[in-house]
Amino acid sequence: MPASPAKTAIGWIGTGVMGRNMATHVIQAGYPLTVYNRTKSKAQPLLDLGARYADSPAEVAAVSDIVFTMVGYPSDVREVISGTDGVLSTLKEGGIVVDLTTSEPGLAAELAALAAARGRFVVDAPVTGGDIGAKKGTLSIMVGGDKKAVDEVKPVLDCFASTVTVFAGPGTGQHCKMANQITIATSMLGMCEGLVYAHAAGLDLESYLGAIAGGGAGSFSVQSYAPRILKRDMEPGFYVEHFVKDLGIALEACKQMRVSLPGLALAQQLYVSLCACGDERLGTQALIKSLERINGRTLPTKSTFSAW
Amino acid sequence: MPASPAKTAIGWIGTGVMGRNMATHVIQAGYPLTVYNRTKSKAQPLLDLGARYADSPAEVAAVSDIVFTMVGYPSDVREVISGTDGVLSTLKEGGIVVDLTTSEPGLAAELAALAAARGRFVVDAPVTGGDIGAKKGTLSIMVGGDKKAVDEVKPVLDCFASTVTVFAGPGTGQHCKMANQITIATSMLGMCEGLVYAHAAGLDLESYLGAIAGGGAGSFSVQSYAPRILKRDMEPGFYVEHFVKDLGIALEACKQMRVSLPGLALAQQLYVSLCACGDERLGTQALIKSLERINGRTLPTKSTFSAW
Repeated sequence: MPASPAKTAIGWIGTGVMGRNMATHVIQAGYPLTVYNRTKSKAQPLLDLGARYADSPAEVAAVSDIVFTMVGYPSDVREVISGTDGVLSTLKEGGIVVDLTTSEPGLAAELAALAAARGRFVVDAPVTGGDIGAKKGTLSIMVGGDKKAVDEVKPVLDCFASTVTVFAGPGTGQHCKMANQITIATSMLGMCEGLVYAHAAGLDLESYLGAIAGGGAGSFSVQSYAPRILKRDMEPGFYVEHFVKDLGIALEACKQMRVSLPGLALAQQLYVSLCACGDERLGTQALIKSLERINGRTLPTKSTFSAW
Repeated sequence: MPASPAKTAIGWIGTGVMGRNMATHVIQAGYPLTVYNRTKSKAQPLLDLGARYADSPAEVAAVSDIVFTMVGYPSDVREVISGTDGVLSTLKEGGIVVDLTTSEPGLAAELAALAAARGRFVVDAPVTGGDIGAKKGTLSIMVGGDKKAVDEVKPVLDCFASTVTVFAGPGTGQHCKMANQITIATSMLGMCEGLVYAHAAGLDLESYLGAIAGGGAGSFSVQSYAPRILKRDMEPGFYVEHFVKDLGIALEACKQMRVSLPGLALAQQLYVSLCACGDERLGTQALIKSLERINGRTLPTKSTFSAW
């Protein structure tokens, strides 16, 4: 049975930039919303829109049919869902937890099994599309979990997603997100290495990007991040430290599955080098700094550069 | 002074799939054309359109104002341009050679200097866009060389290109092409590693690609090559052995410029492994086979897969 705004009470745990923007769409669709965040002030914009505040994940879950979690690290996911004061301690029978955090596939499967043993559901549903996608409600969501539970939460996901892809079984949403991050990391590396080569060869970098962006070398990285690099704009769309978390999860999953991905390993190490040099709060395009360091040269800044 | 179809005699050396399709556009634009190819039969379609045949590069150059070369390896470029029976042995003063081959930036600079000392010009102008771009006349061309010579050949390039990007000085067109190939190689690696991970995690690969293609992981590789991999279509759009040639040139240029590109080095080695296993005549998407081999597993074939 699809969820209905009139009947389905939604809980929301984690109201950082991503969570707050997603939850806003849920309120605006007419669902009653109860929220909790470690730092209460970050939930204020949602309270201003009519959300109720609860003092713990358990208190949120006590009054909700479906609880969304959007927190930081796998350890946070574990705590808010299965901790002493976590969602599963009070969630009613048949209730559903939807974890939007990018987290460990193994943990997702473990929590889903724990919940299932008690007649509840945990669905993993990491997102892509960044803060802009969250604001516009055009995220892409990768969902794994019990099919009936997924069907039930789908209408709520549709409030902030333009694409919802459902895979079979718990943890598969996280696995899809990992494969996505693996592809991005190596694509970003190729984009940066092309820039470093072009600069070393004395090419005008704006002309270079114009020449390659529309062809076989084209990518989201070339289109969206290379122009920021030329403007020396290292502002985070997505933090280096969060990407390092994701790539670490991916490598650990590879280890468990006995999968060898040399490109991922290399890209991860170069991203770790950014943390080593204090660049963890920059955006992922800062990968160029790692390549600049190993080459002892820095790309010029084109303050006037505008995307084509 | 721009070239005029009525006056400018064009020579064409190298009429393989790429060269033949490009030269066809030149004839169709009204330029008189003289051609030479090591295997004469491959020039026949052009002769049928009215091109004249000459028995050597030197004989082509003797009757041409501008001579295009589109051959295989840097050694072929050197031979047809500066060899005993090469273009520069007969080309008239002020004549221009345009090398469309993807070749060494250093060789391009060397040949340009050699020609300049004799009052002739050699322009490097490698292309991207593949056989389809050559057929449609929508190639992207990256040009380096003497500015006056480049201005003169530009109208002829426009016969088969939709984008012509001019860089400053001999060899820079080749350098741009190298940076392009570097970006492609690593992007292709990321796409393949994402697929291997997704398969190991048990995801439906078609759903996986649908979920990631429109977001931050999107690229020409994901859009055009991943679907071929799912259909197990390893037909060459671009041969592995030619890509290995290009990446080898890029690595050599890196060595000369003292530039370290670890992603390029890794991707190049994985492509070399395809040659080691006899896959050099497959298309570049065959990189997946290298990753399959190091992981002891093969992706499933979806004969019904169609691009989204």
